[in-house]
Amino acid sequence: MNMLELIDKKKRNNSLTEEEINYMIQKYTKDEIPDYQMSSMLMAILINGMDEKETASLTKAMVESGDVIDLSSIEGFKVDKHSTGGIGDKVSLLVAPILASLDIPIAKMSGRGLGITGGTVDKLESIDGFHVELEADQFIKQVNEHKIAIVGQSGNLTPADKKLYALRDVTGTVDSIPLIASSIMSKKIASGADGIVLDVKCGKGAFMKDLEHASELAETMIQIGESLGRKVAVVITDMNQPLGHNIGNKLEVAEAYDFLSNYKASEQGLLDVTIAISSKMYQLATDVSEEAAEQKVLETLSNGAALAKLKEFITAQGGDASDVHAKATKHEIEVKAAKDGFISLIDAELIGKASLLVGAGRLTKADVLDFDAGVKLVALNGQSVKKGDTLAVLYSNKDAVDESVQLIEKAYSISDAQPVKNESILKIM
Amino acid sequence: MNMLELIDKKKRNNSLTEEEINYMIQKYTKDEIPDYQMSSMLMAILINGMDEKETASLTKAMVESGDVIDLSSIEGFKVDKHSTGGIGDKVSLLVAPILASLDIPIAKMSGRGLGITGGTVDKLESIDGFHVELEADQFIKQVNEHKIAIVGQSGNLTPADKKLYALRDVTGTVDSIPLIASSIMSKKIASGADGIVLDVKCGKGAFMKDLEHASELAETMIQIGESLGRKVAVVITDMNQPLGHNIGNKLEVAEAYDFLSNYKASEQGLLDVTIAISSKMYQLATDVSEEAAEQKVLETLSNGAALAKLKEFITAQGGDASDVHAKATKHEIEVKAAKDGFISLIDAELIGKASLLVGAGRLTKADVLDFDAGVKLVALNGQSVKKGDTLAVLYSNKDAVDESVQLIEKAYSISDAQPVKNESILKIM
Repeated sequence: MNMLELIDKKKRNNSLTEEEINYMIQKYTKDEIPDYQMSSMLMAILINGMDEKETASLTKAMVESGDVIDLSSIEGFKVDKHSTGGIGDKVSLLVAPILASLDIPIAKMSGRGLGITGGTVDKLESIDGFHVELEADQFIKQVNEHKIAIVGQSGNLTPADKKLYALRDVTGTVDSIPLIASSIMSKKIASGADGIVLDVKCGKGAFMKDLEHASELAETMIQIGESLGRKVAVVITDMNQPLGHNIGNKLEVAEAYDFLSNYKASEQGLLDVTIAISSKMYQLATDVSEEAAEQKVLETLSNGAALAKLKEFITAQGGDASDVHAKATKHEIEVKAAKDGFISLIDAELIGKASLLVGAGRLTKADVLDFDAGVKLVALNGQSVKKGDTLAVLYSNKDAVDESVQLIEKAYSISDAQPVKNESILKIM
Repeated sequence: MNMLELIDKKKRNNSLTEEEINYMIQKYTKDEIPDYQMSSMLMAILINGMDEKETASLTKAMVESGDVIDLSSIEGFKVDKHSTGGIGDKVSLLVAPILASLDIPIAKMSGRGLGITGGTVDKLESIDGFHVELEADQFIKQVNEHKIAIVGQSGNLTPADKKLYALRDVTGTVDSIPLIASSIMSKKIASGADGIVLDVKCGKGAFMKDLEHASELAETMIQIGESLGRKVAVVITDMNQPLGHNIGNKLEVAEAYDFLSNYKASEQGLLDVTIAISSKMYQLATDVSEEAAEQKVLETLSNGAALAKLKEFITAQGGDASDVHAKATKHEIEVKAAKDGFISLIDAELIGKASLLVGAGRLTKADVLDFDAGVKLVALNGQSVKKGDTLAVLYSNKDAVDESVQLIEKAYSISDAQPVKNESILKIM
């Protein structure tokens, strides 16, 4: 077996065997297959696709390329969630305490943010004293005691995926459904989950531009789960505006805290997505009906148990549960509507960039975050505004804010006619 | 413009503009585009193809990546030929003196052999005293005086093609018709030809396995010629056995010499191919009818003018025109038929390997050739043989010949039924 034979096979649109995929992933991880060969293979995969069996084999090979977290000493069904990347997406901060308060163990590894995408670990670190590095035994002990722990990714998880992802990024081979699906699933499976709920974002601000492609990605991930013995469910959610009002680390913690304090006051999209995902996670863990699961979620939100669990969780990881709101920043700039009309779109990518520029995100891994910086969206999709009304507030400790303000102005589309309301939840699979 | 945008375009099966192709080829030649990006582009081209305009632009960009030979000071229409690679292919040694004897200038640059494919320049160097390095002015003077000169490739011709070819070889992106066609045509155009006759080999021993693919390659090269103002004709020839009897440098010179001395005694396939290509070259240069061109070729073969031209050519380049036959080698091993039957196939690749192993070819560029070594095929396709008859003779100065003998035995297929005779000339375009 050699890589050229495998490339030949794939370029002629034949399927690779599990053995062939293992060979390729093992050799590539060990730097025994050069990038220029892997990139021609990736392009052949992108154009010709991969069948269900190949995609599952690829996922498995990537899982096995590094450490696999063993959560077997945690009692109960371990359910994780993953989002394909949203701006203002603080759903993990919400579903984790919701599920834990319902006695479903959450043993979650989360990433840091890079570019316009925020990371749950960064958001948690914005809480005074909170630490995200736990030893393995401490992590497991905390989940068994409190049903919840969220830590930074540690160990050598899916090194094949890391290497492939970096190569895909520079060779035009990112937008392949089998490659995206296997990348996401390999990380979640290596993290030890028994069940996974995936939030696939769909729309202008997302990678999947339409429901057809989002559904195809969802179907592929569900099939991978079936092949590799993991329960998988997918919620396809709208991404025609950022999720909720706040973008920025501490601002998002605050929004999550306020949500759990009084969910009825929260932004509708964030509420819908949180309930849909929490319910699906509960369903995977308990096999109850959809209605029963949603009932449980609403109950734990109403009776304060989820909020209590969030506080318990923050405290367990060393954080100050009373420090959950962002401090005032040097500048708070209100961005105003330039004309009357209806908000028809808030471009999440531009809002993400505005927030990144004031220090809420990192351009390189070495950048230091300003936890209090970010953007609060005041006017949301569908809302009617008058010229001069505040659309959003930019929070910055930096003096150079002009570019961010312009990005926010550009992000808001204001139309004369009232736009059709977008449903937050497009499909549940 | 950047390479990722171009990769995206091609992977979505859109056409690249001339400007985009120029950008890509220029940057790649200057090492400003990494191999891993070019290989994903090459795979996208291999799978999605290139249209006529793209293929012509690619060819032109590769021509312009290096030196372009200026033959304008040679009087007359300069016609060149190229073969897609045959074993025992000594057709260049034949058509060059034939055309020159008909007053058509032959100003040819030829390559050296590598692997199982021989090179015209190596074959000529097997003649005592023959030198293949001429200064540009000397080269042109010789063509104007003698109508013929064949030299080694000099200068920096099509460096983009060299670099791309090396990458294609290790990334599974060789077998793409636009890439093959542009590679061949760029070299011939950079060598200064006004007209080109291409010998496209077809069959088991060739790169193009069937007439359909061979025709597609031919059509693509003709279109490139049309786009870039060069007259192009193609002869598709059978490759179910090596061409003629002899494989090996001096052995092939001898066969060519004997051919020009008495063409009627030569092997039918070699005769057919030589006449077809010579006639097409003459036609391109003079615009006479096919019949008239063939008449002229047969005339110059019959009246001894072509043979006289070969001797004149050898002498002009310092060679001893009486030294045209191989010297006896230490070993001359007759390979015998293992059973009665008819020769149904002589695998050219295996014969090429047998010849390579005894020193007629190079495994690496540094290898020194044994000019007298090689293989003489005694029994040819369609011929009936009895067990014990001599199939071929292996000429070797090396003692280790067992592998070569086995390869020759393996190369010969002997069938019980008389096989259908293969035509040597499959199509002329």
